[in-house]
Amino acid sequence: MHDYDKNGDEFLQIDLNNTLKKIIPDNTSQGQYNYPGKKHYQAVEAWPDADSYLPGGDRNALLNCDAHLKATLIGSSQIFDVDSGTLGVGVTGYIYFVDFDRTRPRTRKCKIIIIGDC
Amino acid sequence: MHDYDKNGDEFLQIDLNNTLKKIIPDNTSQGQYNYPGKKHYQAVEAWPDADSYLPGGDRNALLNCDAHLKATLIGSSQIFDVDSGTLGVGVTGYIYFVDFDRTRPRTRKCKIIIIGDC
Amino acid sequence: MHDYDKNGDEFLQIDLNNTLKKIIPDNTSQGQYNYPGKKHYQAVEAWPDADSYLPGGDRNALLNCDAHLKATLIGSSQIFDVDSGTLGVGVTGYIYFVDFDRTRPRTRKCKIIIIGDC
Repeated sequence: MHDYDKNGDEFLQIDLNNTLKKIIPDNTSQGQYNYPGKKHYQAVEAWPDADSYLPGGDRNALLNCDAHLKATLIGSSQIFDVDSGTLGVGVTGYIYFVDFDRTRPRTRKCKIIIIGDC
Repeated sequence: MHDYDKNGDEFLQIDLNNTLKKIIPDNTSQGQYNYPGKKHYQAVEAWPDADSYLPGGDRNALLNCDAHLKATLIGSSQIFDVDSGTLGVGVTGYIYFVDFDRTRPRTRKCKIIIIGDC
Repeated sequence: MHDYDKNGDEFLQIDLNNTLKKIIPDNTSQGQYNYPGKKHYQAVEAWPDADSYLPGGDRNALLNCDAHLKATLIGSSQIFDVDSGTLGVGVTGYIYFVDFDRTRPRTRKCKIIIIGDC
């Protein structure tokens, strides 16, 4: 909210990242978590589009256990009310869309479902 | 995902369990958490079906504070979109239904509510 | 559930508070977290109703980083089914409405949206 560090990261988001990192350290080496296991690597390597998951065959691109765990903790859906055309997040509320994966850049889609009369 | 340990537990689920256990240790003895308190024991023991909550009168069957706290952190509901008959969880997404209670086996129900045209 | 401490706090709620506090310590001093930053203070101080956010100009009233982080972890919405007029929270389920902010008393609203035939 209003303040950003030199990397352009918003202060509250940095604090959230730090909190999550404390609970769920970045997955930087094989064997640090159980996942990803041997069979998962083999399965992904057998996919027709394997190279988009493991660019250059680099197995480190699948070291995203922390992302799975963070996403599970935070949840993958959230509901917001819209009343008379106003999004009910309060004066200081923000909606973040987060991809916790750090291993490779990619395009992400966020699905917004509107229920009710509009 | 693809890998299971010798107990049949999926790797990512083990990692999630380990993470949650670190934050919220298993409730294995009375007094470890505030809950369950004296009045809660007395209330449950007065229920007509008390024996299904405390089999054989064993008060340890109520040592499930960790399950309450884990469930609160993870949340009890989640929304998924279904588009043209396809569940929107992505290529590698899974839906887990978890009962964090470790104290006694039982049957659980998961309620699925479908909203919209189907 | 059934048990309360001398402050009137319910046991399971105390356990949840303790768990969250362990992960996300109370924000009691400036600089403890990145948020709130200088620009956020300046922005709030420029609001027409600044005094309701910073009573008496006390900047400590904005030390609520922990509240933002706890709310993000727990989530701001939850779905419950109502079947034949009964709220589906089970025998021992409760719904808590929590404002994690500790800095000043205020009135809060909880929005309940009912979807479906009632």
